[in-house]
Amino acid sequence: MVHNRSLITKKVIAYSFKDLMKTQDFHKISIKDIMDHADYRRQTFYDHFPNKYELLNWIYDQELKETIEYFLNYEHWTKIIVRMLQYFKRNLFFYEKTLQLSEQYLFDQCFSKYFQKLIKIIVLENCSEKYSDSKLKINSLFYAYGFVGITKEWIFNHCKTSIDKMEEQLTSIIYTIIKNNTINN
Amino acid sequence: MVHNRSLITKKVIAYSFKDLMKTQDFHKISIKDIMDHADYRRQTFYDHFPNKYELLNWIYDQELKETIEYFLNYEHWTKIIVRMLQYFKRNLFFYEKTLQLSEQYLFDQCFSKYFQKLIKIIVLENCSEKYSDSKLKINSLFYAYGFVGITKEWIFNHCKTSIDKMEEQLTSIIYTIIKNNTINN
Repeated sequence: MVHNRSLITKKVIAYSFKDLMKTQDFHKISIKDIMDHADYRRQTFYDHFPNKYELLNWIYDQELKETIEYFLNYEHWTKIIVRMLQYFKRNLFFYEKTLQLSEQYLFDQCFSKYFQKLIKIIVLENCSEKYSDSKLKINSLFYAYGFVGITKEWIFNHCKTSIDKMEEQLTSIIYTIIKNNTINN
Repeated sequence: MVHNRSLITKKVIAYSFKDLMKTQDFHKISIKDIMDHADYRRQTFYDHFPNKYELLNWIYDQELKETIEYFLNYEHWTKIIVRMLQYFKRNLFFYEKTLQLSEQYLFDQCFSKYFQKLIKIIVLENCSEKYSDSKLKINSLFYAYGFVGITKEWIFNHCKTSIDKMEEQLTSIIYTIIKNNTINN
């Protein structure tokens, strides 16, 4: 219950921050601005986050978790890819702005973490023979960064390529990985 | 001759800048500092670069070109991988600092560009059947970003993993790509 209330408060703060980001620059938004906009006391911010960067990191982590991780065990990965693309397109303006910050490695690390989980599940489900832990780790990290790079390039190009086309390209790459891992394990 | 002289001047400016980066922060180094250190007139800087960011981008581009592209046509790719790792380890301090800047996407784009060239050559040399241009493009971009991510993670971990181990992991990934592309063309 307490956990849920804390999560809801964090989400309200995140929503307020994302709303302010529509019209203002990251560096110009103060904690006071965020909390005034959310109609919360300023101190409440510090009960949940030490600073603005942690809030930004929490948004990346929470939203990617809700977009990717929550579906890993019961939805086919092709649907998760589409969900992820839709999420980025919906939040394009926010990502175009935050990925210009020097803290973009926070995004890279967070996004690659969830993508690694997705890739590991795909490989384990589709790979008939045993895969060593270290090889699985380095390969899934490599593929995850590939996806981070392609997705960021898509975001920097204002999501011009259609979601259908992106889905086709990304799933084609994953199918190649699967075939490959089955054959060259 | 004029071209060569210009290249030499640029390299002296770059050397001066990299030397100052050993003890000072990027944002605290002025054009005057760089040119005083190089014993050049301040105006000479502007004859070659519009600003500090363009100098940084030129260093990325020039040094990665000299490390990767110059060897593409006559050296085996496994040697190029080792050369690249050695280059980053030698320039670790410089990259640890500059990859913290908000302009790190300049590095990502530059590094992935040269890595794409490497991957294309590897795939074309080792792939027995015709590969469509668009598929070659998206796949080499994807793999290039994978390498950029893995290499940056290595840099951010202070190049702790040995060059031998990194070489082994990266070549293993490339061999998998080759086998894969030959089979599932």
